[in-house]
Amino acid sequence: MTARIVPTNVQRFQRGSPVTTEDLLVAEEPLEIRLGHGPGHDRKETRLSVTMRTPGHDEELALGFLFTEGIITDPDQLVRVEHCTHVKDEERGNVVRAELRPDVDVDPAAWQRNFYTTSSCGVCGKSSIEAVRVRCDKPLVPWGALEPAVITVLPARMRASQTVFKHTGAIHAAALFDRAGELLLLREDIGRHNAVDKVIGAALLQHRPMDASMLLVSGRAGLELVQKCVVAGIPLMSAVGAPSSIAVRLARESGLTLLGFLHEERFNVYSGVT
Amino acid sequence: MTARIVPTNVQRFQRGSPVTTEDLLVAEEPLEIRLGHGPGHDRKETRLSVTMRTPGHDEELALGFLFTEGIITDPDQLVRVEHCTHVKDEERGNVVRAELRPDVDVDPAAWQRNFYTTSSCGVCGKSSIEAVRVRCDKPLVPWGALEPAVITVLPARMRASQTVFKHTGAIHAAALFDRAGELLLLREDIGRHNAVDKVIGAALLQHRPMDASMLLVSGRAGLELVQKCVVAGIPLMSAVGAPSSIAVRLARESGLTLLGFLHEERFNVYSGVT
Repeated sequence: MTARIVPTNVQRFQRGSPVTTEDLLVAEEPLEIRLGHGPGHDRKETRLSVTMRTPGHDEELALGFLFTEGIITDPDQLVRVEHCTHVKDEERGNVVRAELRPDVDVDPAAWQRNFYTTSSCGVCGKSSIEAVRVRCDKPLVPWGALEPAVITVLPARMRASQTVFKHTGAIHAAALFDRAGELLLLREDIGRHNAVDKVIGAALLQHRPMDASMLLVSGRAGLELVQKCVVAGIPLMSAVGAPSSIAVRLARESGLTLLGFLHEERFNVYSGVT
Repeated sequence: MTARIVPTNVQRFQRGSPVTTEDLLVAEEPLEIRLGHGPGHDRKETRLSVTMRTPGHDEELALGFLFTEGIITDPDQLVRVEHCTHVKDEERGNVVRAELRPDVDVDPAAWQRNFYTTSSCGVCGKSSIEAVRVRCDKPLVPWGALEPAVITVLPARMRASQTVFKHTGAIHAAALFDRAGELLLLREDIGRHNAVDKVIGAALLQHRPMDASMLLVSGRAGLELVQKCVVAGIPLMSAVGAPSSIAVRLARESGLTLLGFLHEERFNVYSGVT
């Protein structure tokens, strides 16, 4: 249930001659995140979300998700995050429960309505950005000058540590680096937003400050990923692929340094241009 | 508001020497999908979903989404799908309304609870697959024998028609082909699931049968994309990237022929191996 790589039979066509062989697939399974209080409280437990993810680091994923989506505003609002044991056999490993401190109450309903659409918030790029910005209580610490020699080695360092990618060629990664380009944390997942949530959740669990770190993502940079960086207080985000229009706007309005198309010898600076 | 490509200033670092230049970004904006009845009915309108998408073909996206997510079971349940005109200026172009036939009632609440988690459905790979299967009322028409010479030209044909990708290098595509490999429909979007919804929505609007067509997607094949193919009755899906474990299981249980790692001279058959 919790394997990250799954073997399968496959028929390989190459120049017309099919060969039956074995291939390795990246695992994708649902994860349910529940939110509630400890024993002795009769307040309702919420089944917050089901996301398709690659099993592994599920507690980090849940914590990162709750924090970067603004459902909790501080990891200290939780007592613990752990896999549920009181579930059906076939669900074992696919349900995680976050336990709120007795004195903390959150309103998951406000989140379930979708944070882009509240009564005060229209459906446009400007309001999507505003919805993220109101959830960030402190400004980012500006990254300052870029050192190209440090930046351009990051993709190779991330790739060297991607164990699941090596076997399947089919998984996203997110990695946190310090200012000198040393790898601090790396997580892999079939969903790029999950990989980012896992890294941020891991940093929160380790009480590791993120305000002098860079995040590298293997794919493109859309609004969601930039949002997660801004909420977590990470001042520099770099993507192997391209950013979207609204991701660049959010980065510029938030003071996030945003790099794209990062390869061995080059990258573009979309926000934080000096 | 509805541009698909947005120009921006960028600082390009290459071998240490930064150059300020112009770059083109793929547009990403929120789209709200509303569902309700026509004038004269006092039944409640539902704000069903907000998804980040690349503007364009929004009616197709909404129709494809409603159908492949099982919120409607037949396009004929709708009278029309169109952009809302009674919205704030800055929201114009970002709100689409689907109007149900007067005699049709659907229960969006059942969907909002997330189709993976119903009271009768656990959170495991088996139940996720079952949740898709119960929504498919007719079995897929088996694709039959594969013609490698037809299959291997599809990526080049799709790429040749990708106008937004040419300019931004940053967008997913989905394309529908007939048995002979002729391109029938192509749509691009920053979200791969949106690109698939747009293609399926376009085919539904054009009353184009999909039961003898192949769908090609530019990225990887996860559960969601395979689900959409199965619900739409498309018997062959091909991905430029890798499929996930649960996508392969759903394909095998549904009789969908699933190809992955499709390149000029080779591909893998994950389901439908003969």
